[in-house]
Amino acid sequence: MSSSQPLSGVVPPVCTPLDASGEVDTASLTRLVEHLVGGGVHGLFALGSSSEVAFLTDRQRAVALGTVVETVAGRVPVLAGVIDMTTPRVLVHAEAARAAGADALVATAPFYARTHPREIAAHFRAVRSAVDLPLYAYDLPVSVHSKLSTALVRELAVDGTLAGLKDSSGDEGGLRRLMVELGGRHGRADGPAPSFSILTGSELTVDAALLAGADGVVPGLGNVDPAGYVRLYDAVRGGDLDRAVKEQERLVELFGLVDAGPEAEMGRNSSAIGAFKHALRLLGVFSHGTTAAPQIQLGKDAVAHVERHLRGAGLLPVR
Amino acid sequence: MSSSQPLSGVVPPVCTPLDASGEVDTASLTRLVEHLVGGGVHGLFALGSSSEVAFLTDRQRAVALGTVVETVAGRVPVLAGVIDMTTPRVLVHAEAARAAGADALVATAPFYARTHPREIAAHFRAVRSAVDLPLYAYDLPVSVHSKLSTALVRELAVDGTLAGLKDSSGDEGGLRRLMVELGGRHGRADGPAPSFSILTGSELTVDAALLAGADGVVPGLGNVDPAGYVRLYDAVRGGDLDRAVKEQERLVELFGLVDAGPEAEMGRNSSAIGAFKHALRLLGVFSHGTTAAPQIQLGKDAVAHVERHLRGAGLLPVR
Amino acid sequence: MSSSQPLSGVVPPVCTPLDASGEVDTASLTRLVEHLVGGGVHGLFALGSSSEVAFLTDRQRAVALGTVVETVAGRVPVLAGVIDMTTPRVLVHAEAARAAGADALVATAPFYARTHPREIAAHFRAVRSAVDLPLYAYDLPVSVHSKLSTALVRELAVDGTLAGLKDSSGDEGGLRRLMVELGGRHGRADGPAPSFSILTGSELTVDAALLAGADGVVPGLGNVDPAGYVRLYDAVRGGDLDRAVKEQERLVELFGLVDAGPEAEMGRNSSAIGAFKHALRLLGVFSHGTTAAPQIQLGKDAVAHVERHLRGAGLLPVR
Amino acid sequence: MSSSQPLSGVVPPVCTPLDASGEVDTASLTRLVEHLVGGGVHGLFALGSSSEVAFLTDRQRAVALGTVVETVAGRVPVLAGVIDMTTPRVLVHAEAARAAGADALVATAPFYARTHPREIAAHFRAVRSAVDLPLYAYDLPVSVHSKLSTALVRELAVDGTLAGLKDSSGDEGGLRRLMVELGGRHGRADGPAPSFSILTGSELTVDAALLAGADGVVPGLGNVDPAGYVRLYDAVRGGDLDRAVKEQERLVELFGLVDAGPEAEMGRNSSAIGAFKHALRLLGVFSHGTTAAPQIQLGKDAVAHVERHLRGAGLLPVR
Repeated sequence: MSSSQPLSGVVPPVCTPLDASGEVDTASLTRLVEHLVGGGVHGLFALGSSSEVAFLTDRQRAVALGTVVETVAGRVPVLAGVIDMTTPRVLVHAEAARAAGADALVATAPFYARTHPREIAAHFRAVRSAVDLPLYAYDLPVSVHSKLSTALVRELAVDGTLAGLKDSSGDEGGLRRLMVELGGRHGRADGPAPSFSILTGSELTVDAALLAGADGVVPGLGNVDPAGYVRLYDAVRGGDLDRAVKEQERLVELFGLVDAGPEAEMGRNSSAIGAFKHALRLLGVFSHGTTAAPQIQLGKDAVAHVERHLRGAGLLPVR
Repeated sequence: MSSSQPLSGVVPPVCTPLDASGEVDTASLTRLVEHLVGGGVHGLFALGSSSEVAFLTDRQRAVALGTVVETVAGRVPVLAGVIDMTTPRVLVHAEAARAAGADALVATAPFYARTHPREIAAHFRAVRSAVDLPLYAYDLPVSVHSKLSTALVRELAVDGTLAGLKDSSGDEGGLRRLMVELGGRHGRADGPAPSFSILTGSELTVDAALLAGADGVVPGLGNVDPAGYVRLYDAVRGGDLDRAVKEQERLVELFGLVDAGPEAEMGRNSSAIGAFKHALRLLGVFSHGTTAAPQIQLGKDAVAHVERHLRGAGLLPVR
Repeated sequence: MSSSQPLSGVVPPVCTPLDASGEVDTASLTRLVEHLVGGGVHGLFALGSSSEVAFLTDRQRAVALGTVVETVAGRVPVLAGVIDMTTPRVLVHAEAARAAGADALVATAPFYARTHPREIAAHFRAVRSAVDLPLYAYDLPVSVHSKLSTALVRELAVDGTLAGLKDSSGDEGGLRRLMVELGGRHGRADGPAPSFSILTGSELTVDAALLAGADGVVPGLGNVDPAGYVRLYDAVRGGDLDRAVKEQERLVELFGLVDAGPEAEMGRNSSAIGAFKHALRLLGVFSHGTTAAPQIQLGKDAVAHVERHLRGAGLLPVR
Repeated sequence: MSSSQPLSGVVPPVCTPLDASGEVDTASLTRLVEHLVGGGVHGLFALGSSSEVAFLTDRQRAVALGTVVETVAGRVPVLAGVIDMTTPRVLVHAEAARAAGADALVATAPFYARTHPREIAAHFRAVRSAVDLPLYAYDLPVSVHSKLSTALVRELAVDGTLAGLKDSSGDEGGLRRLMVELGGRHGRADGPAPSFSILTGSELTVDAALLAGADGVVPGLGNVDPAGYVRLYDAVRGGDLDRAVKEQERLVELFGLVDAGPEAEMGRNSSAIGAFKHALRLLGVFSHGTTAAPQIQLGKDAVAHVERHLRGAGLLPVR
């Protein structure tokens, strides 16, 4: 990854297929990487939340990341999540990711232990100093339970600690303020952090984020329909907002597959990740739809829900 | 307000000027209404959060709403907030707003007492039945501490309980799902609730919301620069997204005035509302920048911060 | 209320009976007051959360408070809740409560609008200055969504703004710190705020709170079994902790009646308040078990659940 | 640990001393274990939140736990925290703890990934099945961001999945309901889970918790003053509540040392853990007061604050 140009485009978080025993299914993972690269994506984010990174042991993380890096073989950059509670534990993952050949690291603020903004800044600086790879901040309050402030991200962007931001905070107003502070859509290149890359994780409003000046998107749903997100990205870049909105609306409808599992019976995470995995199974990419323990597995009705959405979006033949 | 066409355009929440003793300053309020209508706005929202409705006594609410309705004199529709904890108390405000000549009502879900979604639905239905005016749901989790679900809003839109939604939840993804379920940007008129109006309160991402299919915007900052929001609205409607983005970016910078008060010394609400009011004073619209008790008043440095932002946005001559 | 001695003992929040049309049922309310005073309670708290104050219109609040004050006729002090969003609205209620003959006021921090600690302090000071009655702070984060800090309460206790605290925060550790700062169980009378009264709203741990030095308790369940709470109070004061624990355990079991309504079908508030009201109906105190709109009414199974708990606690004959 | 009697008494979470480079200082840790066992404690909890478990790498966890187990040499039972995000990762720690000689495991619900109550139950059952050691649930919503319900804990207590609960939820009312459901203070031995151990982490209300029927306490502050907590425990068990309250009040005052660090400059965690560690340094137990990265270190004023509290509590000679 050159540091002169911000990373841009569609960078899906790579789902981690598991076999029936809960081990990483490397054959399925290899097929997924080809599905994504073949769909035209511009990068891959391994070991993110949609990869069930929180559920993978260190050994499994190594297998998953190694498989992705080897399969990609340099065709697109590979970002690796280094998700853990605090600096010392994150550093262990960062060193492992570097050794495995990742092109960049993605870290959240500390969690479990409550930290002060000054400590969060120290955390990112320590990771950046210890391992010589571009570092992306991952803003995910739903998991981390704190929000990275615009002021903090800006400070770490301008001083070069961060190469970019993966924003899954849902705070589109705050993100817009950051983008304007960095120069706005037309002035980013002349702004105070010209190579800083802003990637949105808000997969339902990608047209809007790109219009506003985001560099790219990290869509969980991009596992299922990478080509759709690439078409959406290209439409905005080509100035055809009308086509972009239509593509986004089709993807919003497809996204309904995440409601597969009944709310009374399983967590939202199990339902969404299970839906992505069963969709990939129905598309012939994965051998299993298994999610990691202790997540509840999708039942027959839930899988039928997923299948209906795939057919509705034109990804399976209509019966 | 005809019920066949959804309400659309720029509908600012009208700030409530107070004199030094804390009473409603009707002369300033009259000037503000002319400032807004003169700026080309398409409706007014009286007694909303930016109106400090939570701080006004029932008597003061009556004075403020009466002044707005009389001054507008039918030039644009006037929506009236009926903000209180539960159904019986909201009904009192709703009857008062009807008597004062409001064109529509805006109500939140109950707060203070915790309620179940079925109770929230019953709440909106009770308000709609009791007072024969179009009813807008106001989704404002930062104040109400619950979020209206997409499913609930959709149900109440399709059955005609709600004429629209004022969304200040910040959940742009959820709002997008609602819009797609109602037919999407191009299919709303043929959808299940063709006259349902979706107004965003996210004043920093209006270009994006309108692109996605929102009908209008309720910008607190629109008190200060109504013409700017009207230009932004017109640019999107006219298909000139480039101009829209630039106007939005100018307004994002102007919005920085809300950071006037030091975080360590006053609440965010006091700072933002105080900044709007002092901006209006500097623009010659208000006689005072006073906010209601127990809010802390802006000091000299904070007012200078506001002034700088007005000059930066071209609303005051650059010195 | 003399200001030289802190208010102490059992001070139930008085439920507000409603007839089938939702109006205050003054005959039932008169019976409830006699039930409570006859049970030996040391004070009454009208217009609190368990009184459904959030659901009562101003007119209904006046009827309820007037009925309580008249029926009590000076036998015990009557505290009146003045629950509303901000200072100006609270002042209206405070003046009404004073006129109705309340002996003291109970106010929360502002809600709906977000406020700074300095603004919360200004709020309590403004209420205390405006109406010459002892003022109790009501700490109820579940409704108000902010917590009164120990430092703030201590400051307002020592400077005489507050006559006491009604603590329903559930933060027993913080409350203990406050009590120790005010002199501890044995040294309160010589401490910096000797007449400050600490009342716990944690009705399931009254033995513990009194042991630690609380002056009294405000138990919602005390509507149903005032004599039980008086026995518990007397046991602790008489040094018979063993008997106190047994009485408390019986009341904890009785408290299970609040789980009457199925969680999937109604809010916790509707279930708990409905259970208290139906218990009072089954005990012959209330004519109806109606709760205010938009709360969902208890069904037959829920009422049977309440009845079982009354029998289990010896409040109804075992069949 | 025999499974016929519930674990009881004072079971401090063992702080983990670090040297200047951030590595585990085993000499200091050995001294701490002797300080605690010499103080009369009834068990030790290694690798809990006060041990900075979230900050220790797997290698450091092994060093810390190994040192504690070896130094204790069977004099009291050693519980080991197995704190990580989800089941597969917790299982790795559980196996390591078993191998290191821990007597029991302590696990939280999953965090980072949002889980459903059914998934939380599956999590505890999977850990219990995989490693044959008594398992304690650790309820710590401030870190885990979900609360274990009374119903869930009860279910897992009665079916034998859990040997006990370490409750740091602060929900004393919910804990009381659980204790009453399990038979109450006098009837636990005949209840549905007679060997289930309830340990409170609420170190400021231990007298109250023991009075109500808790088996023991896990006090962070017990690192600093183990003998004080043992005296408090013995006073309650001996029926001398008056002495217990006085001891508890002394410990509440001592607890004020956690406010050492200025709130504006560091997190609450850094301040509290830093204060415990510097207190141990001042007492001659630790060589350093260092906390793990990215926590901010206590400055001179903060250390003076700690020293004042030690002198105030009689743990250092008054100068």
